[in-house]
Amino acid sequence: MNLSKGNNVVIEEGVSIGQNVSIGHNTVILEGTEIGDNVRIGCNCVLGIQANGTTNMRQIIENKRSLVIKNDTKIGNMVSVYSGTLISRNVFIGDHASIRENVLIGENSVIGRAAIIELNSKIGENCTIQTLSYITGDTTLEDNVFIGPCVSMSNDKYMGAKKYSLKGPHIKDGAKIGNNASILPGITIGKKTIIGAGSVVTKDTSDEETVVGVPAKKIKTLN
Amino acid sequence: MNLSKGNNVVIEEGVSIGQNVSIGHNTVILEGTEIGDNVRIGCNCVLGIQANGTTNMRQIIENKRSLVIKNDTKIGNMVSVYSGTLISRNVFIGDHASIRENVLIGENSVIGRAAIIELNSKIGENCTIQTLSYITGDTTLEDNVFIGPCVSMSNDKYMGAKKYSLKGPHIKDGAKIGNNASILPGITIGKKTIIGAGSVVTKDTSDEETVVGVPAKKIKTLN
Amino acid sequence: MNLSKGNNVVIEEGVSIGQNVSIGHNTVILEGTEIGDNVRIGCNCVLGIQANGTTNMRQIIENKRSLVIKNDTKIGNMVSVYSGTLISRNVFIGDHASIRENVLIGENSVIGRAAIIELNSKIGENCTIQTLSYITGDTTLEDNVFIGPCVSMSNDKYMGAKKYSLKGPHIKDGAKIGNNASILPGITIGKKTIIGAGSVVTKDTSDEETVVGVPAKKIKTLN
Repeated sequence: MNLSKGNNVVIEEGVSIGQNVSIGHNTVILEGTEIGDNVRIGCNCVLGIQANGTTNMRQIIENKRSLVIKNDTKIGNMVSVYSGTLISRNVFIGDHASIRENVLIGENSVIGRAAIIELNSKIGENCTIQTLSYITGDTTLEDNVFIGPCVSMSNDKYMGAKKYSLKGPHIKDGAKIGNNASILPGITIGKKTIIGAGSVVTKDTSDEETVVGVPAKKIKTLN
Repeated sequence: MNLSKGNNVVIEEGVSIGQNVSIGHNTVILEGTEIGDNVRIGCNCVLGIQANGTTNMRQIIENKRSLVIKNDTKIGNMVSVYSGTLISRNVFIGDHASIRENVLIGENSVIGRAAIIELNSKIGENCTIQTLSYITGDTTLEDNVFIGPCVSMSNDKYMGAKKYSLKGPHIKDGAKIGNNASILPGITIGKKTIIGAGSVVTKDTSDEETVVGVPAKKIKTLN
Repeated sequence: MNLSKGNNVVIEEGVSIGQNVSIGHNTVILEGTEIGDNVRIGCNCVLGIQANGTTNMRQIIENKRSLVIKNDTKIGNMVSVYSGTLISRNVFIGDHASIRENVLIGENSVIGRAAIIELNSKIGENCTIQTLSYITGDTTLEDNVFIGPCVSMSNDKYMGAKKYSLKGPHIKDGAKIGNNASILPGITIGKKTIIGAGSVVTKDTSDEETVVGVPAKKIKTLN
């Protein structure tokens, strides 16, 4: 199967690996992971992690599904990805990134260096999530979304104080979020909306708006 | 002692390990670390690091104490923890997190994915520090504090320009800090105070206040 | 050559190593890396990474140069550094930090824990870049610059929407940036300028100004 494998690589039982795959030194592929053809994985990664927690944390849903990595995807160094997640074709995942369980990453998307994607989130196709950005749990990004560096999101309106159904942002097709913007729980960002750098988005936005500031306010409509 | 140990694990001299411990592949446990019972440690971690520095950095206090990890604690993957730190019972530490020397983490607290806790900080019991948050050096969190994702703190009022006794924030019992908020050096946050997402906290807050904005201002008092 | 080498260390072909070097467990030194005298490298690092990408990302310039690490430099644990970068004498690089290709780090500078420096950036001498800060691509820091924790930068004014020559900030000698500030693409920060914590810098600043807020405005001139 033409596997290029570095030193000290650990491949647990039930892992399947396609054609022309390379795996860097010291990388760990945990039980049941499915790797497609032409996948490149860097050094010191941990892939296929089982979800875990303590009694005072959100309950882990029993997860029987594997981590699946489709053809032509490239994964950097020191990346962690959980079991029960699907990474589609031709995705790029930067060094130090972390992706939790029950996540879908669409084709041709780019997950930046040290970016984090929490559980139950869905990332569309052709999205870019830049360095150090934080995609909270239960978030949806449609296709062609651009998330600048260091963007922050949250999904818990009451910060643990009340029972609340956790709800991440919903970011529609082609929206662009500037660096270090903060998005509150359950916010919807309209199609092709532009959010300025450092903005704090406290209300839903319509399609094709540009909003900036703290709290973010509309400055013009493009259509 | 019923130790489940992955491949390529390095355990240096003078490490003590309790009952029913599991250590993932490629994890390094450095000299003198003390691990309690029922502790679970993921892959590719480095635990028990000796403090280090260069001549133009803050002086390192000679540290003869070990890293101590108490019973029932769970540590993720690619986590780094320094020597001279105490991690209490039933703590959860997420993947890619980093904890410096002379830190105390209280029982039942949760340290999120890629969160960083600098030296000489004290985290109380039942605290939650979410993903990518930054707890600066010399910080105190009392019990039941909630720190949302991507919160930032600092402890050096003059940013290296003047001699100054470094002083982190003091965050009192039950306070809740929204995502991506910034807390200035030496600030005290009152009990059960709520800080809005993206706020910049430049003054102390009283108990049970809600403050938002840049700079953060009071919007209502709950009592 | 008096090399102290941990377990499971991988040293690829064509690596040169000076006198009195230590390399921690599980660290990977990739092909062609040049390491000077008295260099200390922690555990689980990956050094000398070749640049990589997918068809929908910025084109990678063919890079024939090695990673060069000069004398007396200290590198923490789980650090990633790319090929084609020069790290000068007596630099400190914190745990979990990541440095891309074609970067220059000047003598005596400190790169904080989990800080990230993107490609084509130049960091001067005696700079401090604190924990979790993000130096975007094509950025220049002159000497003696202080970047607080969690500072964010960007280099793409149109967030992928238009053809644009990527341009990072230019930060002049002795400037100090407060924690969690956001700097927009192509901004020039004057000499000894002070930027308040949480500020969003949307315009160039003159020398020795102090600016704060969203957007950042001048509050006093020191000269």
